[in-house]
Amino acid sequence: MSMKIACVGVGNIGRAWASIFARGGDEVALYDEVPEALEAALPAISDNLSAMAEAEILENTDAILSRIRLCDSLSDALKGVNYIQESVIEDLGVKRAIFRTLDTEAPSEAIIASSVSSLPPSEFMANLSGGARCIVTHPTNPPSLIPVIEVMLGPATSEETFEKTSALLEEVGQIPVRLNKEIFGYVLNRLQFALINEALHLVESGYVSAVDADKIVKFGLGRRWAFMGPFETNHLNATGGIREYYDKFANAIGGILGDLKTEPNALSPELLAQLAEQMETTIPVSEIPARQQWRDKQLIALSRQFDGARLDNG
Amino acid sequence: MSMKIACVGVGNIGRAWASIFARGGDEVALYDEVPEALEAALPAISDNLSAMAEAEILENTDAILSRIRLCDSLSDALKGVNYIQESVIEDLGVKRAIFRTLDTEAPSEAIIASSVSSLPPSEFMANLSGGARCIVTHPTNPPSLIPVIEVMLGPATSEETFEKTSALLEEVGQIPVRLNKEIFGYVLNRLQFALINEALHLVESGYVSAVDADKIVKFGLGRRWAFMGPFETNHLNATGGIREYYDKFANAIGGILGDLKTEPNALSPELLAQLAEQMETTIPVSEIPARQQWRDKQLIALSRQFDGARLDNG
Repeated sequence: MSMKIACVGVGNIGRAWASIFARGGDEVALYDEVPEALEAALPAISDNLSAMAEAEILENTDAILSRIRLCDSLSDALKGVNYIQESVIEDLGVKRAIFRTLDTEAPSEAIIASSVSSLPPSEFMANLSGGARCIVTHPTNPPSLIPVIEVMLGPATSEETFEKTSALLEEVGQIPVRLNKEIFGYVLNRLQFALINEALHLVESGYVSAVDADKIVKFGLGRRWAFMGPFETNHLNATGGIREYYDKFANAIGGILGDLKTEPNALSPELLAQLAEQMETTIPVSEIPARQQWRDKQLIALSRQFDGARLDNG
Repeated sequence: MSMKIACVGVGNIGRAWASIFARGGDEVALYDEVPEALEAALPAISDNLSAMAEAEILENTDAILSRIRLCDSLSDALKGVNYIQESVIEDLGVKRAIFRTLDTEAPSEAIIASSVSSLPPSEFMANLSGGARCIVTHPTNPPSLIPVIEVMLGPATSEETFEKTSALLEEVGQIPVRLNKEIFGYVLNRLQFALINEALHLVESGYVSAVDADKIVKFGLGRRWAFMGPFETNHLNATGGIREYYDKFANAIGGILGDLKTEPNALSPELLAQLAEQMETTIPVSEIPARQQWRDKQLIALSRQFDGARLDNG
């Protein structure tokens, strides 16, 4: 079922959202108060779609692009929409202003979802008459190729808003997960940096190089986590499942948990210089754009392998 | 260059090693003081190789199996070997005894590597006349499909032993990483449980379900970590590389590091029951064997995608 979507704020994140919704078959209106950002959006989206078409995970990029419409005014973009994806800059005053405006001007049934990454939604979604229809949908970089979306409930978000948002995201090939209440850093980044914190300590203490820590993840943990979560990994490591696993290995697991470096790493200039030196020896800064393209190709290959059919269902 | 290998102790881990070395072209002698274990080894290795042949990542399983020889005695297994992979049970007395015996009876140039997982190697590799040739090579489950090997230096391990061991492991398609000194739990499991510790706290505190935490890893973090380590992921998230990344996001990263749940999770019966209930609803215990096969198929598919050519180079 095709929906009418407005993407408000079309920097990198807003463009990725436009690409996701349009390739999923939705009609997408783009608005940005910076005319240059609006103008740059379509060529960027087109490039992104072309790379995916080349990899044969979607087909008719022209049809997808034809579902995207640039709007000169916010009120034009909001006309008749079912869902608004807000991706303006990370500034509390700006977020507060746009949420007040959207709540006033958007059709009363439309969901208002924020891509906010570092500000607490309770600070700009509270005290709105339409607080029940406001929600957070937090993507991961690069958003058009990583399917998970953290759907976090705001201070007044209704269950109906959560259900409709999840259904809409699934409809366009994303994987919504539910964060029941506001949490700093969301879950994905907390899990990411819990692992990185331990890695930083181990590199700093001379147990392992940063390059070898990377290898341990990419040729070890990441092989499993590409298609199973950590709990499923545990579950499949004992014939009796996760219950038997945590029972059988209680001492070993408790021992490791108790031995982890728990204090937040200080990110000292010396450690960061060491990290940078190692990573730049492996991948010089001048080669980063090419390596980013390589990364995206790998992500597309994994998407083909694990996400089944093509991504375009428009 | 074909090597002569002895696998001493052929439970699950020892068999996986035999499979790895034999498919890599080495001659492998198997010994276990439990005759039943020795007898069960070849059929198990054959099954493992057949699954890989079916997935077309190796070819001639008969030729591979023909390089494996069962030995009635340890002295027979050690004849003329270049390298010994010890995988006997995790018991300090047993490990001490086998290391004393191996150091006495093995050819003087042979490397003696231990698959030890939970005991400190300093407790059974110290005070041996051949301490310089003793080393730890720690695989990850399932070892025949996860290429990373943590190569940890023991109390007296020489650089030459490290270099030769790494070269041998690379020759048979593994990815050796260097742990410079003894560390409890190795690095892979410390990184794994650093992430799991945070996930357990977040599930326990009601922020996210275990099933959704799994989705966040498998449809998010794991997509990237299947082919890039966490530091390379950071490096590619800013055009100036990891230096710019940690500079630009210093506040956000420091904020998350400082907010992580640092105390070791208590693994309470209530939490473990909740985990088990969620995982068993998704994958009933009766379906675990089938799901393990599915897991291995996915690992083989990833190996085909990322490890390039076929694994058999014998």
